[in-house]
Amino acid sequence: MNILILAAGTRNKVVQYFKRALKDEGTVVATDATLLGPAIYDADKYYIVPPITQEGYIDVILDICRKEKIEGALSLIDPELSLLAENADRFKEIGTTIIGSSYELCEMSLDKYEMFKWLEAHNYRCAGSWMDKEEFFKEVEKGSVNYPVFVKPARGSASISISKAYDKETVDLLFNHEEGLMVQEFLDGQEIGADVYIDMITGEVVSIFTKKKIKMRAGETDKSVSFKDPGLFDFIEKFVREAGYRGQIDIDIFDIDGEYYISEVNPRFGGGYPHAYESGCDHMKLIINNLKGVPNERNIGNYDEGIYMMKYNEVCIRKDLEI
Amino acid sequence: MNILILAAGTRNKVVQYFKRALKDEGTVVATDATLLGPAIYDADKYYIVPPITQEGYIDVILDICRKEKIEGALSLIDPELSLLAENADRFKEIGTTIIGSSYELCEMSLDKYEMFKWLEAHNYRCAGSWMDKEEFFKEVEKGSVNYPVFVKPARGSASISISKAYDKETVDLLFNHEEGLMVQEFLDGQEIGADVYIDMITGEVVSIFTKKKIKMRAGETDKSVSFKDPGLFDFIEKFVREAGYRGQIDIDIFDIDGEYYISEVNPRFGGGYPHAYESGCDHMKLIINNLKGVPNERNIGNYDEGIYMMKYNEVCIRKDLEI
Repeated sequence: MNILILAAGTRNKVVQYFKRALKDEGTVVATDATLLGPAIYDADKYYIVPPITQEGYIDVILDICRKEKIEGALSLIDPELSLLAENADRFKEIGTTIIGSSYELCEMSLDKYEMFKWLEAHNYRCAGSWMDKEEFFKEVEKGSVNYPVFVKPARGSASISISKAYDKETVDLLFNHEEGLMVQEFLDGQEIGADVYIDMITGEVVSIFTKKKIKMRAGETDKSVSFKDPGLFDFIEKFVREAGYRGQIDIDIFDIDGEYYISEVNPRFGGGYPHAYESGCDHMKLIINNLKGVPNERNIGNYDEGIYMMKYNEVCIRKDLEI
Repeated sequence: MNILILAAGTRNKVVQYFKRALKDEGTVVATDATLLGPAIYDADKYYIVPPITQEGYIDVILDICRKEKIEGALSLIDPELSLLAENADRFKEIGTTIIGSSYELCEMSLDKYEMFKWLEAHNYRCAGSWMDKEEFFKEVEKGSVNYPVFVKPARGSASISISKAYDKETVDLLFNHEEGLMVQEFLDGQEIGADVYIDMITGEVVSIFTKKKIKMRAGETDKSVSFKDPGLFDFIEKFVREAGYRGQIDIDIFDIDGEYYISEVNPRFGGGYPHAYESGCDHMKLIINNLKGVPNERNIGNYDEGIYMMKYNEVCIRKDLEI
């Protein structure tokens, strides 16, 4: 049982957790586009691969899967998710399962405006979103939305290029300076993160871990505390089933006066996943079971409340890199 | 020999390095304003203290120093540096040495505009800076400065509230929305970090570690590589001696076409210090020697070139915190 972690980057914990779950049953292979992704050095073996946008990239990954007898592969970065999903059949042919959701769901999750349209059409509470700023200004005049709002790229991640705008002047200026922006209503409430595993064999939600976010840093959860609400578990299960996600996903939710709003879905291991793992929600084991053909049993909310997670910087030191 | 690390926050490595340097010779005591500062849990003992702005804060710290028989105390956050320096005599009376620079130097280093005036007056290359945007616009008209420029708080840290402005319109808008901003010329070159130790007994520069910054994240060096240039060592030594810093400092420098520009000084352990330590520049030992009354010998550039540092997230998990 060998696992391939693509675009491992700085996600050393994910690599370490897979190694722990596999024990001596198999190896963890990791890739990165450069030798400066520290997580590759925690894997049993690593490959430096071309950027995902380069022609022939998928062939390089298929070669690695063949050579290393990879049974399951997953990526840790958004833009690669659709690419893998699109090519899932080619991987299947050589015995490699892509751990993730369908191409359509990956594409939708990456595009905040497409996600908004889906959520609205399916009657989920969410942040109002506008690609056309004039339409947004009309809503402001009507009084149906208020400043401040976020101005962000519809397809972006890691809080890059996100601005909070307090007036029309700022929204205009930002739109004049950059393409592909959208206006998003500012949700003022308790931010929640959910790490969810949807069994790849049965399609059922089998594990949910929820945490209140206490502090963010560079778009990632920096401090958080675990909590449980059966109503939230039901809400997440309904949403995930309706959308049709598979494997590991991470959902950003807001609690505003007791109502849950869906903010964003990352159909992959999110940067805050270590909190779930360290609280007992080992989704690596669930993946390995699925790859062995074993469905997982439903085990939702099997963790303690009040477990705090705080991130800090560890350093990876390497000499003699050929850069 | 007991050491007190104030505002330890997420600086677990600094706490760990002091513990390693002290071995069984003494204890490391750490403080934080909340139970959510992960570094306190790596110390031998910790105290939760009021915010530094609260009246009587210094008395609380003095009490800890007395009780724990602290011989050396240092803070890891900018706003506390001046406060400690200002009260250094009160600490001295109870046998505690404040590890750091003078009050005047701490104040100057925290204020980017004051720093700029000093650098200009002492003929160091640096980024042009303006508190008055109209004066900046005049310079643009004269052609002596070009866009883009940074607009940032004169007294700020961790890249909070820093914007890159590409035109007059944006500079105007930013100044209209916030107080205490300044315009700073954008230095386009190789960013360098220097970790320097100035002996607290002799006042001589005894250790310098320099690295090229490869990637930044949330205002901190995320990836870097060590290098050596005797010319840079001389330049740093001249600057540090002229300014009069003491103890541990961190200097941001730009190399633009072979000329060194001074960007900023943090008179404390910077977030990138672990690179210096892991490359052999153990400044904790130098501090302990000084606290024992032993001056350190000059040992500049005693490390290898081409050592890469990459940060990644480690997690601290705590249950049953009384929050």
